[in-house]
Amino acid sequence: MRNLLVAQSGGPTAAINATLTGIFQSVRSSGKVDNVYGSKNGILGIIEGQLIELNELVRDTAATETLTLTPSAALGTCRYKMADWSKDEEPYKKIIEVFYKYEIKYFIYIGGNDSMDTVDKLSRYCVLKNYDFIIMGAPKTIDNDLNLTDHSPGYGSAAKYIATTIAELERDISAYNLPAVTIVEIMGRNAGWLTAAAALARINGGPGADLIYLCEKEFDTARFISDIKEKLAVKLGILVAVSEGIKDSTGAYISDRISNGEIDNFGHKYIAGAARSLGQLVKSEIGCKVRFIEFNLMQRSAAHITSETDITESILLGQKALNCAVDGETGRMAAIRRLHDNPYTVELISVPVSEVANQEKVVPLDWITPDGHDVTEELIAYIKPLIQGETNLKYENGIPKQIRLY
Amino acid sequence: MRNLLVAQSGGPTAAINATLTGIFQSVRSSGKVDNVYGSKNGILGIIEGQLIELNELVRDTAATETLTLTPSAALGTCRYKMADWSKDEEPYKKIIEVFYKYEIKYFIYIGGNDSMDTVDKLSRYCVLKNYDFIIMGAPKTIDNDLNLTDHSPGYGSAAKYIATTIAELERDISAYNLPAVTIVEIMGRNAGWLTAAAALARINGGPGADLIYLCEKEFDTARFISDIKEKLAVKLGILVAVSEGIKDSTGAYISDRISNGEIDNFGHKYIAGAARSLGQLVKSEIGCKVRFIEFNLMQRSAAHITSETDITESILLGQKALNCAVDGETGRMAAIRRLHDNPYTVELISVPVSEVANQEKVVPLDWITPDGHDVTEELIAYIKPLIQGETNLKYENGIPKQIRLY
Repeated sequence: MRNLLVAQSGGPTAAINATLTGIFQSVRSSGKVDNVYGSKNGILGIIEGQLIELNELVRDTAATETLTLTPSAALGTCRYKMADWSKDEEPYKKIIEVFYKYEIKYFIYIGGNDSMDTVDKLSRYCVLKNYDFIIMGAPKTIDNDLNLTDHSPGYGSAAKYIATTIAELERDISAYNLPAVTIVEIMGRNAGWLTAAAALARINGGPGADLIYLCEKEFDTARFISDIKEKLAVKLGILVAVSEGIKDSTGAYISDRISNGEIDNFGHKYIAGAARSLGQLVKSEIGCKVRFIEFNLMQRSAAHITSETDITESILLGQKALNCAVDGETGRMAAIRRLHDNPYTVELISVPVSEVANQEKVVPLDWITPDGHDVTEELIAYIKPLIQGETNLKYENGIPKQIRLY
Repeated sequence: MRNLLVAQSGGPTAAINATLTGIFQSVRSSGKVDNVYGSKNGILGIIEGQLIELNELVRDTAATETLTLTPSAALGTCRYKMADWSKDEEPYKKIIEVFYKYEIKYFIYIGGNDSMDTVDKLSRYCVLKNYDFIIMGAPKTIDNDLNLTDHSPGYGSAAKYIATTIAELERDISAYNLPAVTIVEIMGRNAGWLTAAAALARINGGPGADLIYLCEKEFDTARFISDIKEKLAVKLGILVAVSEGIKDSTGAYISDRISNGEIDNFGHKYIAGAARSLGQLVKSEIGCKVRFIEFNLMQRSAAHITSETDITESILLGQKALNCAVDGETGRMAAIRRLHDNPYTVELISVPVSEVANQEKVVPLDWITPDGHDVTEELIAYIKPLIQGETNLKYENGIPKQIRLY
């Protein structure tokens, strides 16, 4: 038997199910797969033997079309780091047992850096133990921090959400004639790719965010206050975008600052976000009206405003992963190589997953302006093609149509 | 001369510019208006003599089409409460002076309860002083709390954003296999209409929010904790929607609770939101993972996901306001009367603005379930028609096209 097992892992995105759809499409066209199974909640579901049969879904083209634009991980997700097999072989044995039980030949894991670590470890283990299972990775992360791929599927859609929402917020705050600072916190602990998307409205002549701070650059609060004062001198409504992961010169998160000594009614300390922390600072140092906004889970689940480019590529990466698997590649990840910016052209490749696992691709420092509070034209040119095009989302009773697998 | 002056006021919405477009359309078709002026930042702009000429924009159908789906108040907004003329006649005199200077015959003010108070006061003043200026109101508010109109323009689009985003968040949190509570805070200090939209995903068979608390009903924190525990016993990822204005039995905002004694690094007390306050409570009483999300300004500025029904009605209300004005009506507001739910049909009417000003239409208590943590089928049936249809938004470089007037 040549059965396929698929699973999803890490933080969900609006495009991760599109990659599942791509895998299903290539299953149909290749004719080289017998049955398709999905694992519930990533690798954990395999270890716990929680597989669901997906043959009917694979054949149902209408359902997979809805799946493509359903946000989050339809098979469920997990955050699970496998120990090295030499330290704890038990999970490996259980996985192999499940592979045999369900006659799995191919396993494709869709996820980010941590998930690629699992692909790496599991494929090495199989080689070492002479199991001929094929273990392939398909990339996914809104953070865009995966190595060896020009960009990561999911990122373009999240960037489109951010670019659009920043443009909308800019209109909102500019309607008032009072000095006010609005600070928006965008996901990214170590990589500022998403925060950089706050500049994109400039492509259309809008201002985008007035000040943009990525987590790659040391954050100086005194400099921040003087940046704000400078902007307020020429404009009333100031829009600031910050990565959640901005850190001071000691490497401490700015978001941790406000928690020092702060205790709620129930006697618990808690951590404010970076935006909230900075908002308190602006209130205290400048005294004008301040708002803090977090894009929170919306930035990764906004399937109603995905990028057509991103969704198309996410599907293609699923197809590529399946095609590589049936061609016998193992321990590799489907990836994107950019050939040209204008016209934007890419090719799909596969790369060794060992060089992706546990790596983080951050924004090059020379794509941040020397003053530290903006991004360069090069960075905008890099992101621009990734947010292009709108998807043909179906609505039902005024709300986007979704599918749930369990 | 029969010149028209338009202005916008109060919290911006994604539909308020559509009403401006409707006014412009009726200016073109009626032939009863000579020049069109806009006031910057609402009534304040008139008092300060800051008018901009809009004739070119009125004639430019392509620009007004873009204006229709540009979020926020294109003419700027203000929060300004006029004193009674007997207490302070100065602003009234300035307004009349500007009316004469620009040969204004008609003034249309687009806004909510406070703005309708301005329309009321100004129209009474004109009648009393024998000025034959026409003062008309056009409604606007995402809060849906305006009296004498079945619903308010802007509400349907905000409700569509909330229904869609709640459906997306539900998919996101359901992907994890850990007990977790996500609390979403939705705008509404006194009226829970927006929060009720968190139930709409159920129309399509989704769960929507698991628990919904409107600000109309007294909020009992002990009951809240037992509601959560009950849900967690049967489901892992719990989604809760609360109005920002939920209050305890003493009438105190839940959002104020956490501020007691809480001081930041800079020595300032601050107020947490309702969701954050409740999140701390859940952490303390239950101890599971908790997230708090605020829809913040996004819920009122998300022009990329407006309701076609809402935008169409917003345009029609602008047309109606202009038509009433040129027909000689003054001191009135354009409004919507619902004739049928199914098929949904409405008629446009005008109502005395004196009965709208300073009133608040809240959710009837019998549209909240007896257990206090959900809404009834009647409430869902009331909102459902208002979120129907998608607008033909134009994108430019992957970001929605917008217009800026100044």
